[in-house]
Amino acid sequence: PASRLPQVGTTIFTQMSQLASDHQAINLSQGFPDFEGPQVLLDRVGEYIKKGMNQYAPMTGVEPLRLAIADKIQRCYGRKVCPQAEVTVTSGATEAIFAAIAATVRPGDEVIVFDPAYDSYEPAILLNGGVAKHIQLDSYDFSINWDAVREAITASTRMIILNSPHNPSGATLSVEDVAALEALVENTDILILADEVYEHILFDGRHHLSLHRYEALAERSFIVSSFGKTYHITGWKIGYCVAPAALSVEFRKVHQFLTFSTSTPMQYALADYLNLDKDHDQALGEFYQAKRDRFNTAMQDSRFQFTPSQGTYFQLMDYSNISDINDVEFVHWLVKEVGVAAIPLSVFYQKAPPELRWVRFCFAKRDETLDQALERLIKA
Amino acid sequence: PASRLPQVGTTIFTQMSQLASDHQAINLSQGFPDFEGPQVLLDRVGEYIKKGMNQYAPMTGVEPLRLAIADKIQRCYGRKVCPQAEVTVTSGATEAIFAAIAATVRPGDEVIVFDPAYDSYEPAILLNGGVAKHIQLDSYDFSINWDAVREAITASTRMIILNSPHNPSGATLSVEDVAALEALVENTDILILADEVYEHILFDGRHHLSLHRYEALAERSFIVSSFGKTYHITGWKIGYCVAPAALSVEFRKVHQFLTFSTSTPMQYALADYLNLDKDHDQALGEFYQAKRDRFNTAMQDSRFQFTPSQGTYFQLMDYSNISDINDVEFVHWLVKEVGVAAIPLSVFYQKAPPELRWVRFCFAKRDETLDQALERLIKA
Ligand SMILES: CSCCC(=O)C(=O)O
Ligand SMILES: CSCCC(=O)C(=O)O
Repeated sequence: PASRLPQVGTTIFTQMSQLASDHQAINLSQGFPDFEGPQVLLDRVGEYIKKGMNQYAPMTGVEPLRLAIADKIQRCYGRKVCPQAEVTVTSGATEAIFAAIAATVRPGDEVIVFDPAYDSYEPAILLNGGVAKHIQLDSYDFSINWDAVREAITASTRMIILNSPHNPSGATLSVEDVAALEALVENTDILILADEVYEHILFDGRHHLSLHRYEALAERSFIVSSFGKTYHITGWKIGYCVAPAALSVEFRKVHQFLTFSTSTPMQYALADYLNLDKDHDQALGEFYQAKRDRFNTAMQDSRFQFTPSQGTYFQLMDYSNISDINDVEFVHWLVKEVGVAAIPLSVFYQKAPPELRWVRFCFAKRDETLDQALERLIKA
Repeated sequence: PASRLPQVGTTIFTQMSQLASDHQAINLSQGFPDFEGPQVLLDRVGEYIKKGMNQYAPMTGVEPLRLAIADKIQRCYGRKVCPQAEVTVTSGATEAIFAAIAATVRPGDEVIVFDPAYDSYEPAILLNGGVAKHIQLDSYDFSINWDAVREAITASTRMIILNSPHNPSGATLSVEDVAALEALVENTDILILADEVYEHILFDGRHHLSLHRYEALAERSFIVSSFGKTYHITGWKIGYCVAPAALSVEFRKVHQFLTFSTSTPMQYALADYLNLDKDHDQALGEFYQAKRDRFNTAMQDSRFQFTPSQGTYFQLMDYSNISDINDVEFVHWLVKEVGVAAIPLSVFYQKAPPELRWVRFCFAKRDETLDQALERLIKA
């Protein structure tokens, strides 16, 4: 019988990381750091394993971690959430995104997705019988056209998926965006799925406009984040979802049958670390801003063109001064001939504009790695 | 709007573990050991974390673990599987079960489920628009009535879910069962989902009739297992699915958007341990048989009645000599008045026979724990 996801292939991240290793290229494609997380955090996992914390965690997550997450949300965004009823720990943000969609999107329901979009949203919608309505972000600054959103909303609109800071563009929501969204959903029962995994990586003095700050939005939202990006441990796969109690009940019904629970010793280690180092999150923006600036400053000597990323650890670069081939061909050329792996922007679109000439670089790398990549890119 | 899983509440495992802790009862309900896994395995996680294996694992699992799984399947069942194309590492068997169903069960497809059944099968079928067709196992020996299966099969039958050794009953497939299944599915395109997480826990000299042993079945099967039960680390949540390449392609399309990948350092630690201690699996049956026998021998002095479990770390007990209340009431009485938590059998049924008077005990406990529980139970 036919595939349930006929259009899905192997993710671009797997493909490009593989190509990078085949060609011994510097891997600025898939988003992950090539440096380590805080030593104390790393050490704690072994300690909790030794202490015997090796059996099932509670389905909702271990209590100290849910408490630490609630505490952090209050500290960062001034919102009080209930660690018992509103916080659920998941196997990465990916599971949280799937569970939020599976819990609420019924066959025929429409979900608004902004392109370019992270690649997991659409398959999750399709598997649950939903219909993805794609709206393209502005092709220069990747801002949201709220008039287009208003026109796309129908009686079947069940959910809007937001992602700020935005992967792959690095755009961030503005106060005007938030106001437009508030006006749009008021008096509807449209839900919001807010993918905020880069919540602590914003640049140039920007504040993250988490939906936690806006009660009228938060009360209809699944707000998803993860520890992978914040603590440089993308391979631990621990994320979480915060949603009002009634939505969390539905979310947990799905979560308990998707994975049930997540690595117990890693959850305890993270709980400790969140309580120990409350300054980490604030310092993270500056840490990555230095990397962005190192990358961008050097790239001014290349033939790539760009506007600095506002957040995330990604930078889009326009290569139209270098070549007129399409972006998939361009990244293949780049990995083979230049020795640097990147992600073509078009893969994040349902229907990419044919004139698209952007690639995405991940700058979550040691300065030596960046410098080595830059040397190659500037010659390109 | 209505819940997508209106009939689902919090799992019985969460409820009973909570009640056990509220009443300071000995927890023989949720299935997990109260002792530790092999020291070398535990130590390795910290070592791999220290070595910097903290970023995304490949979507299919780290290569050494896929190789070790293929090696073990060949060693245990004489079947050669391809570690690249046929083995996928998941966030526990729960994720693997969900992904196999989501990858292949389309709206309207029917899935045959044997009651009593593990609680995650039905929600996974429902969320994907499938229809669960429940067939009751024999109410004394929990064997499969293959005539009933034959009658239940229609043109819409997409999948049969098997679970051997069987949770909660401890029953195991016989060669006659396998032959009946082979005859039944021959010349159909019915798929099989084989939940074999207790594959190494069989008693009284029984051999596990893994579907890996039967090529005609294996070629249409998702065979799921996990390391939690085998290595006493239920909280690490690492499982895997073996399926022919074409089915694995579909499985991975879903897996990559459910969780993408699973704890990198734990995967490397498991790979090492599988290669280091190839006798562990064989010794596990004897290890648990001693516990089963300790439990059952003492229980002969109680008013519970039972047939010894053939596999798993569970033992069903008939309490009809003690009380005529229903099993949910009985376990509440047991946890409060006797101080031992158990699982009522009826929760594993879509429609439990009203005369059911069984409860399930988990004997994956230290001898001291078992003895303490037994003292209380014998008085009951
Ligand atoms: C789960 S692999 C993808 C990592 C990532 O978030 C990205 O590169 O965009
Ligand atoms: C995931 S909690 C359930 C554990 C288990 O398999 C059982 O108790 O049957």
